[in-house]
Amino acid sequence: MGRVTERRRVLRIREGGASSRPDTLVGEEPLEIRLNGKPLAITMRTPGDDFALAAGFLVSEGVLSRAGDVANIVYCAGATQDGSNTYNVVDVRLAPGVPLPDITLERNVYTTSSCGLCGKASLDAVRTTAPWPIADTPPVRVTPELLAALPDQLRAAQQVFDRTGGLHAAGLFSPEGELLDLREDVGRHNAVDKLIGRALRNGQLPLSRTILLVSGRASFELAQKAVMAGIPLLAAVSAPSSLAVDLATETGLTLVGFLRGGSMNVYAGEQRIDLRAGATAGVGT
Amino acid sequence: MGRVTERRRVLRIREGGASSRPDTLVGEEPLEIRLNGKPLAITMRTPGDDFALAAGFLVSEGVLSRAGDVANIVYCAGATQDGSNTYNVVDVRLAPGVPLPDITLERNVYTTSSCGLCGKASLDAVRTTAPWPIADTPPVRVTPELLAALPDQLRAAQQVFDRTGGLHAAGLFSPEGELLDLREDVGRHNAVDKLIGRALRNGQLPLSRTILLVSGRASFELAQKAVMAGIPLLAAVSAPSSLAVDLATETGLTLVGFLRGGSMNVYAGEQRIDLRAGATAGVGT
Repeated sequence: MGRVTERRRVLRIREGGASSRPDTLVGEEPLEIRLNGKPLAITMRTPGDDFALAAGFLVSEGVLSRAGDVANIVYCAGATQDGSNTYNVVDVRLAPGVPLPDITLERNVYTTSSCGLCGKASLDAVRTTAPWPIADTPPVRVTPELLAALPDQLRAAQQVFDRTGGLHAAGLFSPEGELLDLREDVGRHNAVDKLIGRALRNGQLPLSRTILLVSGRASFELAQKAVMAGIPLLAAVSAPSSLAVDLATETGLTLVGFLRGGSMNVYAGEQRIDLRAGATAGVGT
Repeated sequence: MGRVTERRRVLRIREGGASSRPDTLVGEEPLEIRLNGKPLAITMRTPGDDFALAAGFLVSEGVLSRAGDVANIVYCAGATQDGSNTYNVVDVRLAPGVPLPDITLERNVYTTSSCGLCGKASLDAVRTTAPWPIADTPPVRVTPELLAALPDQLRAAQQVFDRTGGLHAAGLFSPEGELLDLREDVGRHNAVDKLIGRALRNGQLPLSRTILLVSGRASFELAQKAVMAGIPLLAAVSAPSSLAVDLATETGLTLVGFLRGGSMNVYAGEQRIDLRAGATAGVGT
């Protein structure tokens, strides 16, 4: 079975010298996700939390929305020549009565299967398949100061990153700023799927009282995953894309980008940002 | 047609105040890649260089290896209700005699179609489909000092990043450190596909006299793309994954990670790094 980290020998070059030494790398292995025995997608992921990854992926795709939708999740015997299990194939079996999605050749594309031929179609697909509106009652409202403190909390809790420097992280926080869960993976979308899949399996969807923080940028896919899980606030350390902002605007998701060093940009859903405490010079729409 | 950047209004929160102002975002739109009219993959990309992206993707997948393999590449009329072209569907038509790949449902997964059920199978798939060995004759050899200067060159040449802060970049350099081409995209794999696709269409494959530099991390997929294009040296600003290192080791690719601030780690293919000029304290294997 693959591991979260692996050791390799590396030639380390620094000012004034080179030395050969062992180094810790983040593990990466393919994972094939099957649905009722039928191959659906392959993703390159860091091994671990594979059942959650598969479940979260299927939440993002609109197949699952509650724990009871899943009959069980199992590792399939791998296809290695000696018949041993590689732990790289996971089969999600739906509970009776849960409709199988229409898996056509065109739809069988990892994390983009809800995308149409233009950005508008992509937005429409998410809006029409999302099982919950982003209706947080009572409404989630957070101060800029609370948001500004989250990246350091996430970073402090990252264990594998410290050893490898090579992982994306996704963290779920309460509206009070408490870290609820954290996942790390070579793929940012995998880290988010693992968070959402764990929540599904724990009966916690929709995640209407949470904030999702991701390292790096906020793409359309990450905004899609937040919307499909009912998360009202997505914050990213780096920039969002145009389509992520459009999706947030259409669905009511609060989207915060460039969350670093006490500063941030709010691209959509400003009503969840409580500016009362701070100055509001120049606020206008 | 989608654009490379788009403008949106943003609430900017800084120490001491909040202000509403227009902001420039990186564009993101889906692109469907068809092969001889048959849908093969959908990727979320920054519009532009779409023909190169499609061609480079097919080089990575082992379908194309020279300019003559392509009869032509066209935008298909989009499937919008009014019949207008969205410029988000590209069809690559193979020249007569070029074999169509076996596109099964299981294989139809973007950028991971050559992955098997375990890391070893993924490595084997790349090694057996790569059209060229990484045989650079005369051998490419570069000093750490030359490599150390590349990230700043890449950054200085990035135009869209300066406006949006939201793009991955990939640059092709000569062994003398000259920037040959640069592509930016919301997806790092797209930026690399665009570089490789442009080279294919210009009759420049294999890229055996080049260095590929990517922003961010070096995943298995990026190492795969370098190998499939015959690039002998892949450098990344951040960490490589275990499987990327394994692929580099098996194929003879030189893999450099954490290339920043004059330092770097060499994970494979040390013979292309010329340490004569600098100190070599502690070098050993």
